[in-house]
Amino acid sequence: MHYPQLAAFAGGSDLIRVIGHRGARGVMPENTMEGFAFTLDCGVRLLEFDVVMTRDEVPVITHNHSLTGSIVRDGAGNWLRGAEPKVADLAWSDLAALDVGGLDGRSDYGQRFPDQAFLYGARIPRLSDLCALIAQPGYEDVHLMLEIKSDPAKLQDGAARAAVVAAVVAEVRALGLTERTLMHSFDWALLAECKSQAPEMPTSFLTQLPDNDADLGEDHAAPSCPDLTGSTVNVPELVAEAGGSLWCPYYLDVTAEQVAQARALGLLVAVWTVNEQADIDHIISLGADAIVTDYPGRVQRRLLAQNLRWAEQQVLPA
Amino acid sequence: MHYPQLAAFAGGSDLIRVIGHRGARGVMPENTMEGFAFTLDCGVRLLEFDVVMTRDEVPVITHNHSLTGSIVRDGAGNWLRGAEPKVADLAWSDLAALDVGGLDGRSDYGQRFPDQAFLYGARIPRLSDLCALIAQPGYEDVHLMLEIKSDPAKLQDGAARAAVVAAVVAEVRALGLTERTLMHSFDWALLAECKSQAPEMPTSFLTQLPDNDADLGEDHAAPSCPDLTGSTVNVPELVAEAGGSLWCPYYLDVTAEQVAQARALGLLVAVWTVNEQADIDHIISLGADAIVTDYPGRVQRRLLAQNLRWAEQQVLPA
Repeated sequence: MHYPQLAAFAGGSDLIRVIGHRGARGVMPENTMEGFAFTLDCGVRLLEFDVVMTRDEVPVITHNHSLTGSIVRDGAGNWLRGAEPKVADLAWSDLAALDVGGLDGRSDYGQRFPDQAFLYGARIPRLSDLCALIAQPGYEDVHLMLEIKSDPAKLQDGAARAAVVAAVVAEVRALGLTERTLMHSFDWALLAECKSQAPEMPTSFLTQLPDNDADLGEDHAAPSCPDLTGSTVNVPELVAEAGGSLWCPYYLDVTAEQVAQARALGLLVAVWTVNEQADIDHIISLGADAIVTDYPGRVQRRLLAQNLRWAEQQVLPA
Repeated sequence: MHYPQLAAFAGGSDLIRVIGHRGARGVMPENTMEGFAFTLDCGVRLLEFDVVMTRDEVPVITHNHSLTGSIVRDGAGNWLRGAEPKVADLAWSDLAALDVGGLDGRSDYGQRFPDQAFLYGARIPRLSDLCALIAQPGYEDVHLMLEIKSDPAKLQDGAARAAVVAAVVAEVRALGLTERTLMHSFDWALLAECKSQAPEMPTSFLTQLPDNDADLGEDHAAPSCPDLTGSTVNVPELVAEAGGSLWCPYYLDVTAEQVAQARALGLLVAVWTVNEQADIDHIISLGADAIVTDYPGRVQRRLLAQNLRWAEQQVLPA
């Protein structure tokens, strides 16, 4: 099957794509319309973000399964304390008054992003809000790396998985965005469900080896991602066999040999989440198709330093 | 005289203002409408920027007197090479095709801002463009720290100085923004001219001691700023005597004693340009009214870490 959206994620001889991670988490609050707008304004037109479903089956854009105390403020403006309620147990209307515009700097998570702006009144977007934005004229070049988060409590529940995929696919189809969307997940069973329900959208396989797992203060991939450790495991081959179009390894896991192997198998390779200058330069040197980053401006600048572009139409200054 | 705009720049017991330096130079291209929009979107509603006049007497927003090779790209998309033409020798129409959206990372100046996004098609704004933006509904709380750059070649030319001030004042008055604008300069003669032509706008005195002068890759203050070195020079007193409402010292020059002294003289104190965490914390500890920064998000976060606000209406999370 030909997937037109893959061209937007494919690198080239002097081209490595930049994908804004949750918008641009290093600069603006993650998974907010404000952050997506900033990323797009920077000329970074590929957006990665996370989708979770509410109790009333509204796909919303947020990373963790539970409302995170270090991110979410209540109607009085205070970060949530105590037990973090699960999004799946809440109605969309319960989320509408919450403010996700600012990190609690006392938390481990907040300390990871000391430059992130602090906004008032930033709301958890619905998937339909982002789709509505990019369905507008002027956004035709915007493509979505739509990550679906699998509830660790329901990994064995095929009906729940099918319901999440159905709700997400319906939103993307409703605005005619299937040709601009990649279905992206750590959960291989969920990606199989995506292929089954929406064969017109390619799948992107996120991986992270447990020994390189260091995402302090947020949900871990481990519960839903297969354990791919071991010298005999050939990850690109497994992704290709599973019908993936793109492989998205963690930046500390991936080697030049694997990138080449993935390419030979016809896969695109986008690497997540690459933030430090030395790491960005390293991933550039591997020849990945795309770099997923919290700091899109920084990656743009590292690419330019090596006479590389992030979009076809760009004119490189001499 | 009562200046209503001063309240917007005044700190308080739990309040230190954030002023976006040339917009937010650390994140977005300096002195661009794109950078101003980003800064305002972050909830930082005080904008510092620089004005220079073209040959045909259009006040434009750019820092250096000459078009800077590390910032300005020509119509073909290449950074300017060789001799840098003076803005004062060019017509406004000569500037319209230039792109100031991206730094040359090979230059000393470009290397100072490695996270600055790289844009295509960002133009040198006219002062009237920024005034038109903030004259719109929804921008009533935006205030301008309008720096006028004195041409080092014309410091003795009172008629030239009067002409620049007249052009700038006309633009600010045309959009009814005098009550939201501070006139800001290193050049004390120019500030006297501002007071004479536009007594309704308060003046803000920039200072920088020559031994703390390190603005690599850009025009230096030295030619227009009086030499204020020496243990017998009392800078706040001189500013007060000159009729200043605000004193804006370089962050490496200012002491707690001077801040207290300035306060006692009825001056506000805004400190420039404070970018590193340790420096931000230090200036917070001095009790300045305001911090001028290239990284507004970072300063917001340092303020919150100390339970401080940057705007009156803010609710601090507990």
